[in-house]
Amino acid sequence: MSSPVRVLRCDALITCVDDTVAVRRNAEVGISNSGRITHVSDHRPANDTVAADVGGLLMPGLVNTHSHGPMTLLRGVGDGLALDRWLGEAIWPREAKLQPGDVEWGMRMASIEMLEAGVTTSCEMYFADDEIIEAVRSTGGRIVCTPGVVGAVHLSSLHEPGGRIADIKRLHTEHHDIESLVTVGVAPHSPYDVPIEAVAALAALARDLDTLLHIHIAETETEGAALEASYGSSTVSILDDHGVLDGNVLAAHSVWLSPSDIAVFATRNVSVAHCPKSNMKLGSGIAPIVAMHAAGVNVGLGTDGVASNDDLELWDELQLTPLLARVSSEDPSVLDAPTSLLMATSRGATALGLNTGTLAPGSWADIIRIDLDHRSFQPIVTDADVVQRVVWNAKRQHVTDVWVGGSPVVTASEVTTVDAIETTEEVKRRGTRLSA
Amino acid sequence: MSSPVRVLRCDALITCVDDTVAVRRNAEVGISNSGRITHVSDHRPANDTVAADVGGLLMPGLVNTHSHGPMTLLRGVGDGLALDRWLGEAIWPREAKLQPGDVEWGMRMASIEMLEAGVTTSCEMYFADDEIIEAVRSTGGRIVCTPGVVGAVHLSSLHEPGGRIADIKRLHTEHHDIESLVTVGVAPHSPYDVPIEAVAALAALARDLDTLLHIHIAETETEGAALEASYGSSTVSILDDHGVLDGNVLAAHSVWLSPSDIAVFATRNVSVAHCPKSNMKLGSGIAPIVAMHAAGVNVGLGTDGVASNDDLELWDELQLTPLLARVSSEDPSVLDAPTSLLMATSRGATALGLNTGTLAPGSWADIIRIDLDHRSFQPIVTDADVVQRVVWNAKRQHVTDVWVGGSPVVTASEVTTVDAIETTEEVKRRGTRLSA
Repeated sequence: MSSPVRVLRCDALITCVDDTVAVRRNAEVGISNSGRITHVSDHRPANDTVAADVGGLLMPGLVNTHSHGPMTLLRGVGDGLALDRWLGEAIWPREAKLQPGDVEWGMRMASIEMLEAGVTTSCEMYFADDEIIEAVRSTGGRIVCTPGVVGAVHLSSLHEPGGRIADIKRLHTEHHDIESLVTVGVAPHSPYDVPIEAVAALAALARDLDTLLHIHIAETETEGAALEASYGSSTVSILDDHGVLDGNVLAAHSVWLSPSDIAVFATRNVSVAHCPKSNMKLGSGIAPIVAMHAAGVNVGLGTDGVASNDDLELWDELQLTPLLARVSSEDPSVLDAPTSLLMATSRGATALGLNTGTLAPGSWADIIRIDLDHRSFQPIVTDADVVQRVVWNAKRQHVTDVWVGGSPVVTASEVTTVDAIETTEEVKRRGTRLSA
Repeated sequence: MSSPVRVLRCDALITCVDDTVAVRRNAEVGISNSGRITHVSDHRPANDTVAADVGGLLMPGLVNTHSHGPMTLLRGVGDGLALDRWLGEAIWPREAKLQPGDVEWGMRMASIEMLEAGVTTSCEMYFADDEIIEAVRSTGGRIVCTPGVVGAVHLSSLHEPGGRIADIKRLHTEHHDIESLVTVGVAPHSPYDVPIEAVAALAALARDLDTLLHIHIAETETEGAALEASYGSSTVSILDDHGVLDGNVLAAHSVWLSPSDIAVFATRNVSVAHCPKSNMKLGSGIAPIVAMHAAGVNVGLGTDGVASNDDLELWDELQLTPLLARVSSEDPSVLDAPTSLLMATSRGATALGLNTGTLAPGSWADIIRIDLDHRSFQPIVTDADVVQRVVWNAKRQHVTDVWVGGSPVVTASEVTTVDAIETTEEVKRRGTRLSA
C-alpha cells in the first residue's frame, strides 16, 4: 500500500466494509496518489503533515445503479400516466426532438445534481454515449456507461458495420478502464421491447467484453405478457434459457418476480437495481426486496430518470426502501437502516463490479462529508443513531464535500469542477425546446 | 378590507383558493397590520411604497395536522419495533423520565424545524401543554394545541377539581383565541387506549368549547380488536354511537377504515390527518385515501412525531401521499400533484378550523418563499411545472423565507425569532439524558 498524499480527519465515519455498517469516532481516511484509500484508522499523529481536519461525518459516496441522467431535460413530464402511455405520449415524442449537445448538457446537469447530493457513481442507460461520457468526465463523477438498445432491432442490423454492436465495441475500447472513472457496459432496454435474440446477442457481447449487462426486467405486471404467452414461461426463465443471465447482469426494477424467478436470480448471481420511487410514482408495483434478500440476491438502489422520480439524489430511495418494505409486509422489523445504507453503497458497487461504496484500504476514495452537526440530526446519542440519521434524515442539503477517486469535486455544497450556472441555463433552454 | 402595510412582490405564486391550485406569475401579496392577506394580484404600481421585491415563489405555509413536536428529544428511537412494542419499550420509558423544561425545549426545536421547512401551522397532541404553547409563542409559529389524555382514566378523575378537564378548560380560557396564533382543542389519545366513556366526555368538552377534537383512530389493524369484540361493531361505529363524531373531529391515521367507516366520516364531516411516512415506518398499513376522497372526506397531512418519521418537514408527506396512493392502487393517475398540495395546505387548515393554508384576501398571511431558481427545479416550462416541482422536488433547503400572521420568522433559511443554536444544544443535552 502506498503512502497517503492526503488524510481527511473527521468527527465520525461509516465504513460499509464486508457487508457491515460500522461507525468510528475521531477517525481518519488516507488517500493515495492514485485516488485509492490507504487506511481507515483512529487519528494517527504521524500523518499530520498531510492531514486536513474536515470534521463532520465521512462515509462512502452513494451508488446510483439505475439512471437515465440526460432526462433532467424532461424533469417531471407526463406525471399521472402509466408506463406505456408515459413512454409513448410524454417521453418518446420529446426524445425524438433531441439535438446534438442536448444529451451532454442534460447529463452534465444530472452529474452535478448527483455529486452535490453525494452520489459519486451512477450506472447510466441512454444513447449518445460519447456525450454522456464527456459530460461526466467534465464533472469528475464515476460512471458505468451502458449504451442502450431499444425497439425491434434485427440481429443483422445490430451486427452490421457501423451498427450498435460495433459502436459499443468502439466505446468500450476508447473509454472502458477499470482503473479510471469510466467503464462501459451493454444495455438492451428490456425483453419486451427488444427481440429476445437481440438481447441474447448483446448479452454475449457483454460477456465477451467481460463487462456489465444492464437491462430492465419485470418493471410492470403486464409488459411481458406477449413474450411469456409465446414461450409459455416467465420472462426470467426465457432470459435464462437464452443464456442472457450467464454474465454480470444488473436487472433494473424487477418488481414482478415470482419466487422461482428470484431463485434464478440467486443462482445466476443477477443483481437488482431497486427503484422504489419510480415504481411508486408510475404505479408499477412493489418489488419483493425482502424475499430477494432472503434468497441471497444482491440488491442496489437506483433513481431511474428524473421524469419518474423527480430527482437523482438517492436519499429518498434510502428512506423509501425500508418504508416500502415495511408497509407492504406490515412489519417494521424488516429492512433496517444499516441494510438500506449498504444497498445504497457497497451492494450497489458490487452490482456494478466496482471497488467503491466502502471505506476500505484499496478501494476508490469516493467519499462524502455530511454536516453531522446540523440540527436536522439532533440529538445523536449512540453510534447507531449516526446510521439512523444518515438513512432517515440526510438530504442533499447536508452534503458539504465530495471526493471522487480522491479528487475534490464538491466543496461547501457546490460542485467545483464545472460551471453549474451555465449548465442550468443550457438545460432550461434545451428542456424548454423539447417540451414546446 | 384594510390597506396593506407590506406587499411582497414575487416571480410566481400559488394560491390554493376554493380547493383549487392556481399559479400566477409576476404577482404580489398584500399584508394588513393585523397579519391578514389584503389582496393577491398582478403587480400594482400604487403599492410601490410598501412593496418588497422578494422574487422566487410565494405559496401558503404548510399545515401539519398531526404532530407530537416535543418528541424531537426522542428522534428515531425504537426503529424496527411495531407500534405496541415501540410505545412500551422505546417511547414510554423515556417519556417517564421527562423533567420540567424538556417539553418546552423539545417543542421549540420542533417549531424551528417546521418553520425552517415552511410548515407554519401544526396541530400538537402531547402533554405539559403550557410548555408547548410557550415554546411556539417564542418562535412565532401557529399552533393548535390539543392537550392529550392517555390511559385508563376514570370519568371521575377527569372531572375532579384539578383534573384534566379543568386543566383543559383553563388552557382554553388562557390561550384559545382564533384571532391569535394559538387555539386549544382536546385530544383523547385513542378509543383503544382511553375508555370510551372518557372519550365521549372529552368530545362533549370539545363541543362545549366549540373547538377541535383530535384523536388517533384505526392506526393499526389489531389495536381495536378488544373494543370491537365487546361492542360487536367497528371502532368508528362505536365512536359514532357515543356521539364522539358529532363535533369538529380530526381523526389521525385512519388506516384501517372499512367503506362503511368512511361513509360515517363523510356523514359526520370528520377530517383525517394522513401520516404516510409514520404509517410506513411502523408497518401500520396504507390508509385508503383515494376512497376517502371519493366519499368526500376532507384529508390533511401530518408528520406524526419524529420518533416515527424522523422529521417534521412535511415535504416527504407531500411526495409520499401520491406515491403511496399510486403504488397501492397500481394506478399513476390517482392523486395528482395539485391534490397533494391542497392536502398539505388548505385542506389541512380546514381540518383544523383555521383560515390559513391559502393565499386569499382575509386569510392569515402565513406565507413561505421557495427559491424557484434553484437548479433542483429546472427546467420549468409551464405553470403546471411549478406545482409539480413544489410537490415532487421541494425540500427544507429550498425554503428561504417564512411569514406567520404577516410577521417574518425565517430569513435566509434560518429562524430569526429564537436562538436555534441554544435550542439545539438543550435538545442534545436533554435527549441524551432521556436515552441514557
